[in-house]
Amino acid sequence: MTNNIKEPQITLVGAGPGDADLITVKAIKALKTADVVLYDALVNEELLNYAPETSVKVYVGKRSGDHTYSQEAVNKLMVDYATNYGHVVRLKGGDPFVFGRGFEELDFAASYNIPATVIPGISSSIAVAELQNIPVTHRGLSESFWVITGTISNGKISPDLYDAAKSKATIVVLMGINKLAEIAEIFKSEGKSKLPVAVIQSGTTVDEKVAIATVDTIVNAVKDQNIGSPAIIVLGEVVSLHPKFQLIKEIYDVVAKG
Amino acid sequence: MTNNIKEPQITLVGAGPGDADLITVKAIKALKTADVVLYDALVNEELLNYAPETSVKVYVGKRSGDHTYSQEAVNKLMVDYATNYGHVVRLKGGDPFVFGRGFEELDFAASYNIPATVIPGISSSIAVAELQNIPVTHRGLSESFWVITGTISNGKISPDLYDAAKSKATIVVLMGINKLAEIAEIFKSEGKSKLPVAVIQSGTTVDEKVAIATVDTIVNAVKDQNIGSPAIIVLGEVVSLHPKFQLIKEIYDVVAKG
Repeated sequence: MTNNIKEPQITLVGAGPGDADLITVKAIKALKTADVVLYDALVNEELLNYAPETSVKVYVGKRSGDHTYSQEAVNKLMVDYATNYGHVVRLKGGDPFVFGRGFEELDFAASYNIPATVIPGISSSIAVAELQNIPVTHRGLSESFWVITGTISNGKISPDLYDAAKSKATIVVLMGINKLAEIAEIFKSEGKSKLPVAVIQSGTTVDEKVAIATVDTIVNAVKDQNIGSPAIIVLGEVVSLHPKFQLIKEIYDVVAKG
Repeated sequence: MTNNIKEPQITLVGAGPGDADLITVKAIKALKTADVVLYDALVNEELLNYAPETSVKVYVGKRSGDHTYSQEAVNKLMVDYATNYGHVVRLKGGDPFVFGRGFEELDFAASYNIPATVIPGISSSIAVAELQNIPVTHRGLSESFWVITGTISNGKISPDLYDAAKSKATIVVLMGINKLAEIAEIFKSEGKSKLPVAVIQSGTTVDEKVAIATVDTIVNAVKDQNIGSPAIIVLGEVVSLHPKFQLIKEIYDVVAKG
């Protein structure tokens, strides 16, 4: 059967943390058959070149403080485009299921009986620290890692962060840079002033910046280096493996020896 | 300057969770310039086809109970091959820094002054559940996820699991299938008998199997379906989003109404 009306279909695709080469083969295959690409603010626009020239590309924004479209509007656009054009690729920064509201999008598509699937992406929660040579796990230093959003829907800090500060896990906070001082206070109140911390802005991209410090000095280190959003925060002994931390350690040792 | 002795170089590459299309473009580029590929047990062997035909491919094993080579032997092989052949790609299942001892390998290479870098891979800790339509985070159900190894170096359960059972995070346990009964008991002792649990074997491959149950029924569900290693365990309310869980819920509701 041939006709001009394509079957609607939606594929949520993880675009990875920024570096265009951190896209998967599976994601590229989906992009190559896209009639429409709806892409987020943190997606590397080079990836759009994998989609056919004739495909429609729509920027739907979304990052802290720049809600170009609400989630509801994105959901509706996605379904409207699928119904009218066929295959919609919903290209999302990082991995669609890590604070990406990806499941809500799949669910919305299902409510319209539109077949929808998800393709995982490289998550910045692991890869951004990794490309700074900081492993989220390391024998003798950390047997687990805990990934937490810095800001929950009511704008407050997640209650999970208070539990996290008590744990021995490596803590990775996404979208938390605006709450860094508050997060540092939570860790201080657990007696972790000297715990190593890394803050990495725009990881894996040409704009990458990194601050390496401890809980009690990280706020100033981030200010000194003019680090802002988007950024991830990593708190844990594994951060001591970063070459820059060695210098901090030597200063402490000198001070400690008086 | 041209000569026949290549500069030694090591690239740790994440091969992803199993599906050969879940490899990144960056990983393929590294494989294409490999003189030697050292690959693990959980790596999809199709990926070796990206390496030059003339390259040396060495299986170095490593999975629970099948330590073909010790970590020390792998480290030494890696450096020996780099010194004698040039570019060694160390192809590792999932992501090299998620319980992969990847940092130890980078560190070992550095001790021989061999340039070594890492390329992140799709981690099964996020992607395996995702491809079963279970998101590790979801508004209203989970604001964080905590990834823990089931077995630490002394063979015991990680102490982090006891803290995890108290938390509201989605808990993902890697390499923990042999300790499932013990893990279930820990969650029961926190009053979480009815918490949804998924166990997924060989996720993203043709051999994939899944058991969906609750803390108090998961051990039997896994037995019934003959699920074994390699598998991941996901504990959390997000598992209730899996279509199979709806049936479990309906049975509970009927029983509850008496």
